[in-house]
Amino acid sequence: MSLPALHDLEVSIPGIRIDTDPETLKMYARDQGPVQELIDPLAVVWAESVADVQETLRWASRTGTAVVPRGAGTGVSGGAHATRNCIILSLEKMNRILDIRPGDELAVVEAGVVNADLNDAVTPYGLMYAPDPASYKISTIGGNVATNAGGLRCAKYGVTRDSVLALDVVLADGTLIHTGHQSFKGVAGYDLTGLFTGSEGTLGIVVGVTVRLRYLPSDVRTVAAFFPDFRTAAAGVLAVGAARVQPSIMELLDGATMAALDGAHGSDLGSRGGALLLIQTDGFGAEAEAAAVRAVLTELGGTVSSEGSEEAERLLELRRHSRGDDVEHEIRVGEDVAVPRSQLVHYVAELERMAADHRVQLKVVAHAGDGNLHPTFWIASEEGAGGVERLNAALDESITIALRMGGTITGEHGVGQFKLRWLPQEQQAEVLALQQQIKAVFDPAGILNPGKAIPEV
Amino acid sequence: MSLPALHDLEVSIPGIRIDTDPETLKMYARDQGPVQELIDPLAVVWAESVADVQETLRWASRTGTAVVPRGAGTGVSGGAHATRNCIILSLEKMNRILDIRPGDELAVVEAGVVNADLNDAVTPYGLMYAPDPASYKISTIGGNVATNAGGLRCAKYGVTRDSVLALDVVLADGTLIHTGHQSFKGVAGYDLTGLFTGSEGTLGIVVGVTVRLRYLPSDVRTVAAFFPDFRTAAAGVLAVGAARVQPSIMELLDGATMAALDGAHGSDLGSRGGALLLIQTDGFGAEAEAAAVRAVLTELGGTVSSEGSEEAERLLELRRHSRGDDVEHEIRVGEDVAVPRSQLVHYVAELERMAADHRVQLKVVAHAGDGNLHPTFWIASEEGAGGVERLNAALDESITIALRMGGTITGEHGVGQFKLRWLPQEQQAEVLALQQQIKAVFDPAGILNPGKAIPEV
Repeated sequence: MSLPALHDLEVSIPGIRIDTDPETLKMYARDQGPVQELIDPLAVVWAESVADVQETLRWASRTGTAVVPRGAGTGVSGGAHATRNCIILSLEKMNRILDIRPGDELAVVEAGVVNADLNDAVTPYGLMYAPDPASYKISTIGGNVATNAGGLRCAKYGVTRDSVLALDVVLADGTLIHTGHQSFKGVAGYDLTGLFTGSEGTLGIVVGVTVRLRYLPSDVRTVAAFFPDFRTAAAGVLAVGAARVQPSIMELLDGATMAALDGAHGSDLGSRGGALLLIQTDGFGAEAEAAAVRAVLTELGGTVSSEGSEEAERLLELRRHSRGDDVEHEIRVGEDVAVPRSQLVHYVAELERMAADHRVQLKVVAHAGDGNLHPTFWIASEEGAGGVERLNAALDESITIALRMGGTITGEHGVGQFKLRWLPQEQQAEVLALQQQIKAVFDPAGILNPGKAIPEV
Repeated sequence: MSLPALHDLEVSIPGIRIDTDPETLKMYARDQGPVQELIDPLAVVWAESVADVQETLRWASRTGTAVVPRGAGTGVSGGAHATRNCIILSLEKMNRILDIRPGDELAVVEAGVVNADLNDAVTPYGLMYAPDPASYKISTIGGNVATNAGGLRCAKYGVTRDSVLALDVVLADGTLIHTGHQSFKGVAGYDLTGLFTGSEGTLGIVVGVTVRLRYLPSDVRTVAAFFPDFRTAAAGVLAVGAARVQPSIMELLDGATMAALDGAHGSDLGSRGGALLLIQTDGFGAEAEAAAVRAVLTELGGTVSSEGSEEAERLLELRRHSRGDDVEHEIRVGEDVAVPRSQLVHYVAELERMAADHRVQLKVVAHAGDGNLHPTFWIASEEGAGGVERLNAALDESITIALRMGGTITGEHGVGQFKLRWLPQEQQAEVLALQQQIKAVFDPAGILNPGKAIPEV
């Protein structure tokens, strides 16, 4: 980009912060997803208002500049990676909670509001914003909307889409539109709110979100059950379902994950079993549901935590950290497939076989209530190119098998840049073409987060 | 249409049932929505397979014939009304339940399966299909998807969209596509499943639906509370919310609705109060929640049904019939607005004022948990053109006021043909234009249910 073009943007929006410092560009060049090719953005621009976003997009349309919107940059699919000749449009300064309406059980926020901050703000009203991706302490509502983020509690409360009532979106040409409704129900016109949710900033830039709030549960119970192996623990998931208990959280950890936690936190999970099932129930029936859970899991041979749920809660807190940070001297790749629930155990058996076949390490945690798995494959860095090849082969196979079982390549992280290569395996050519045509309706010049979410034409 | 063209369709699909009998055309010319101009279709065609639908659409594309898809014809917005030079494509014969997978908590059905039949089939597994529009005994899952139908239970379980995982859709050119996933979660690509849901057959014809099933509740409690007036009953809705109880059903009936039920069923509701709130709780916490409901409603001055819920259940059954059939010598129009919950009482006060101002009769029932209201306005037929004018004035004003309160013109019935005139009041021109462009992507020749859901270009 020419300096005059950036200067033009500065003139268009007096006082806007634009940074081209190499350190800054480096820091904003990527999110937490795997990087195939690290590209620095031309500049980072911080919008402080809807008008700033509109003006920036008008400028981008004029100059043909690609715009990569960014919340907290906590995505793990590369949806916020910089692409060639792009600016990063950060929404992190648009962090005002605009309205909390307890009687209507909704809140209106700017896109840059941090998930946990919204929850802190509505807790005094006895309300909560339910979607809780692992990154909830730092990720933004706008980013959550862009990826249609899931989390632990979505077993009962659904994903981000299920808590979004209305959106304010700036289109590629700078037009501000409003979608959805401030009532819980509404079917006027096509579901543009749903279309934008999960579209990773490729159709428009979400600047405001009206969210539905849920009731802070009157009671919460947590149950931990150790099982000798993953297979039995997965059977526990189905048994809880068969008991017609709908937990708010149902997390499944394999032995390798437990060992990793033991290593990181000094716990002794590994000595207590080969797999761990963590279940939380909430609401007026929490105690009765927990009792039913304890009964069916004990029946299955699980070692179930005693009545009090303190230890189980501690374990759940540990689990929230189980994806872990990058590990030195290792190359790690996390996955995010989802399969029909009954396939959980078969899928993990296949994962174990693949890890052996391809000589890579494996650990698995699953949002088992949703059939959503996060396997992590890794090799030692010293294994070099051959190791990376084996790692990729394992990854590719893990996708193929998930699809064969009726699953999806991404349960909650989004396609971003990283999973694009697998999308045509999941979706037929006609479906991909329709999405490209929809993209062309919203963004004819292709300036909005190009090369993300769907294949480019 | 020329006879040769229809003959061509008959030849394309050996054995297909095509009916041009005037009686049949009359019967299939409309759904249960208000009719502005009654138009007979050219023919009614009954598809018996996905291939039949594909072939019919190929033929329609070839001949430029408009296709109005139809389930049971129970819609109330005219979404299935015949339009000029159209055929009606009935899906009622595609009524097979293709798969029930209890472990995966899902079912796969053809579009013509009746909602109640699906529920009957999954009940033995301890599962249910949650969305329960008033028409559930006769309406089809495909029709429910087309309108994104709501119902009574969606206060807790959400609308049709929340129970749809995947769709099989035939596009205008006859291409069969598959959207969504068979896992509970999935964010690969744009949400085409959501886009088709509620699109009233204007983007494609839904032929197959994968639905998520929910647990048949272990316990159900029903509470009935009579209040002196609507205002206090509406306060009861907010009080139940403030007690952080999430009922599965929360229905509010005004005095005129109670009087109508008394007239039709010989009940004595009118003598017991001026408004009735019916609340159902379910699941492991049902009893505790019902107790909390009884406490807060009694506190508010409600006359609450005694502990057993039999009488309340009987009242709920009455309520399911409260929209009523056409009444001789009267012209009636039902509405379907939704407003933010806290506006319920203000909105009904406005409705009462409008009814007085315009000298029309009014009764109101509301899915109060969702802020979704079904006011019915009516006049005596003998009031003639002047009466109809006053009726329409009341209707128009009821829409304007709902929108001013942050509501929507349609909570669950769809825009169809009848509400098109109000859509531009709710949605800005840019949003309407985007929808028209999306329509053009899916249906460039405009043969799919033209003139429904969104304004024609």
